[in-house]
Amino acid sequence: MRPYDIIVKKRDGGINTKEEIKYMIEKYVEGKIPDYQIASWLMAIYFKHMTSEERYNLTMTMLESGDKVDLSAIEGKKIDKHSTGGVGDKTTISLAPMVASIGLKVSKLSGRGLGHTGGTVDKLEAIPGFKTALSEEEFFKIANEKGVVVAGQTANIAPADKKIYALRDTTATVNEISLISASIMSKKLGIMSDGIVLDVKTGSGAFMKSIEESVELAKAMVDIAKKNGKKVTALVTNMDQPLGYTVGNSLEVLEAIQTVKGEIKNDFTELCLELSAHMVDLSGIMSYEKAKEEIQKNIYNGKVKEIMKEWIKSQGGNPEVVENPEKILNISNLTYDFISDKNGYITHIDAESVGISSMLLGAGRASKEDIIDTSVGIKIFKKLGDEVKVGEKIATLYYSEEKGYEEALKKLKESYIIKDEKPHENKTKLIYEIVK
Amino acid sequence: MRPYDIIVKKRDGGINTKEEIKYMIEKYVEGKIPDYQIASWLMAIYFKHMTSEERYNLTMTMLESGDKVDLSAIEGKKIDKHSTGGVGDKTTISLAPMVASIGLKVSKLSGRGLGHTGGTVDKLEAIPGFKTALSEEEFFKIANEKGVVVAGQTANIAPADKKIYALRDTTATVNEISLISASIMSKKLGIMSDGIVLDVKTGSGAFMKSIEESVELAKAMVDIAKKNGKKVTALVTNMDQPLGYTVGNSLEVLEAIQTVKGEIKNDFTELCLELSAHMVDLSGIMSYEKAKEEIQKNIYNGKVKEIMKEWIKSQGGNPEVVENPEKILNISNLTYDFISDKNGYITHIDAESVGISSMLLGAGRASKEDIIDTSVGIKIFKKLGDEVKVGEKIATLYYSEEKGYEEALKKLKESYIIKDEKPHENKTKLIYEIVK
Repeated sequence: MRPYDIIVKKRDGGINTKEEIKYMIEKYVEGKIPDYQIASWLMAIYFKHMTSEERYNLTMTMLESGDKVDLSAIEGKKIDKHSTGGVGDKTTISLAPMVASIGLKVSKLSGRGLGHTGGTVDKLEAIPGFKTALSEEEFFKIANEKGVVVAGQTANIAPADKKIYALRDTTATVNEISLISASIMSKKLGIMSDGIVLDVKTGSGAFMKSIEESVELAKAMVDIAKKNGKKVTALVTNMDQPLGYTVGNSLEVLEAIQTVKGEIKNDFTELCLELSAHMVDLSGIMSYEKAKEEIQKNIYNGKVKEIMKEWIKSQGGNPEVVENPEKILNISNLTYDFISDKNGYITHIDAESVGISSMLLGAGRASKEDIIDTSVGIKIFKKLGDEVKVGEKIATLYYSEEKGYEEALKKLKESYIIKDEKPHENKTKLIYEIVK
Repeated sequence: MRPYDIIVKKRDGGINTKEEIKYMIEKYVEGKIPDYQIASWLMAIYFKHMTSEERYNLTMTMLESGDKVDLSAIEGKKIDKHSTGGVGDKTTISLAPMVASIGLKVSKLSGRGLGHTGGTVDKLEAIPGFKTALSEEEFFKIANEKGVVVAGQTANIAPADKKIYALRDTTATVNEISLISASIMSKKLGIMSDGIVLDVKTGSGAFMKSIEESVELAKAMVDIAKKNGKKVTALVTNMDQPLGYTVGNSLEVLEAIQTVKGEIKNDFTELCLELSAHMVDLSGIMSYEKAKEEIQKNIYNGKVKEIMKEWIKSQGGNPEVVENPEKILNISNLTYDFISDKNGYITHIDAESVGISSMLLGAGRASKEDIIDTSVGIKIFKKLGDEVKVGEKIATLYYSEEKGYEEALKKLKESYIIKDEKPHENKTKLIYEIVK
């Protein structure tokens, strides 16, 4: 087998066999195929794509390159959730206790964020005392006793994907459905849950800008999961504006807590409910409709809130944060308001730019070494379709002495477009498609 | 400027600017852009191609990376000739004295061959005493005094092309018109002649298998030459069978000498005449028709033969070879005949396989380090369209004790197809198109 022939086959629109894909990935990881051959192969894949079979074989090869996380020590049904990433996405924090309130076990391994805002682990660390570096024993114990646990991922899952992703990142071969789906699924299938709900974001703040592409990606991921025998549901959801009304770590935890307590109702709270209900549905414990009803009941009767408190406490966090988040969370008292100088409607928000604005405040990492400032971020008052008048507050920036707000404000202003007419209602739709 | 953005632009069908192309090539040669980024860029070019302007900029950047050969010390018109390479192609050896007989100066720098048979320099070295390693002074002196000189190329022409070609060779990005034309022309434009005739081979023994692709390549090369202000004519010629009736170094020199003496008439002798006449035409000395007539006259009156003798003598070779080639040339006396076991017509010859057969006899190099055996090769008796009967000789293999003939015979047999009906006449046409 020669890498050259495998490249030619793909370049000419052929189908690479399981053996060929295995050979390319394994030898590359071993350092026996040079990166320039893999780079040209990836570019050929970019243009010629992969069949469902090829995608699955790529996923499995990358999956087999690393560890698997065995969750069998946790009793009951374990349903995982994965988001392709967006701005203001603190879903896991609210959704975990919601799902646990129905009796499912949520044992999540999450990453740190690179870019806009922190990852779930970074966000949770905004809670004073909260510890995400857990031993295996602690992880299983908390999951079994409290029903919820979220820890930083330390297992060496799909190292081949890590190596290939780094290459794709510098060779302009990231944005291809087969490569994206295989990359994500090789990591997710390494965690041996009973099922997974995929939240595929679409729009200005997402990796995939168009609904069509996002649906295609959702289908590819669902297809891979099914071939692997994993139960799966994918939701294609709106990322044409930040999710909810907060961006930045402490601010997002605040919104997540308000959601769990039923104090607010917006696109974020709705998405938490939808994803939770689909997770429960996938577990077979109860139907989607019933789950939605039950979870809402548990929010209003305080069950979800109690689970959250117990969970935070068990991971070393101060549970008082649930009762008095604004007192316990460290939120900067330096603020600057972004005021409208126009009358009209919000017709466009570049969610990615809002994310970058938040990063400029210090809420995210531009490079791996950066330290996140959990106290800074953006509180949003006006979202897509909202009417706005001259002098009205569109958002508030929570900034630090050190970084200031100027750059972030400039970026935030650029991300908003105000026009005389309301935007198309499709822009504010929350869920575009469900792929099963 | 970032390589990443330049790759993305090309990947998405955009046009890379002169500055972008320069940046990619120059920084790559300097080792400041890694090969995997160039590999993915090349694959993007493979799929999205290049405009005429991009091709020219690529050519010029590669040309500027190295030396130029100044021929101004040679008086008179210097017209160069370049063939894209085929099997049995000894054209330069006959054509040089033909063109010189009209008063043009032929000062050629040629390479050694890798693959099927030797290059022109290897072939000339089959003449006892012939020296192709010449000093600059010797080179100019012979050109001025004898009108013909052919030396091995030592100048560092287009080193960027060398580096990129090596990468293309392992990443399946060789076969793209823009990349091929820029590669060839960056080398040819480094030799400061007054014009160039390009012999673009097409068919089973050529780089380009289809006439359409070959015409496209010819047009691309002519376009680059013209943009560079160089006079140019390209001929798209038949390589659906070996050129002439010999393959292998001494055997090819024999055929070249017979051609110069007017002893034989076949596709090879015809091509020499055509290319020569186009070279003269390009110089402006006389028209194509007049040149053809004059060259034929000079063959029959012995003028071309005399020039060849003088030329060979001046480069240290034994001029007696021209009068008694079969006596002077070292041709193996071990022969094996390939006999037909069928009645019919030769409908297909895989010229590349004939070349490989000759290489297996020892006439070519599989790797750079191999030493060529100039005494071995193949004499062909039956070509496309020829009738053949059971027991008739199709070809004779001239082999060495050391390598034997078995493998070569097997390969040669595989390359011939004999059927009941004659092949389409287009198969035996010599010149498909002339691009100016």
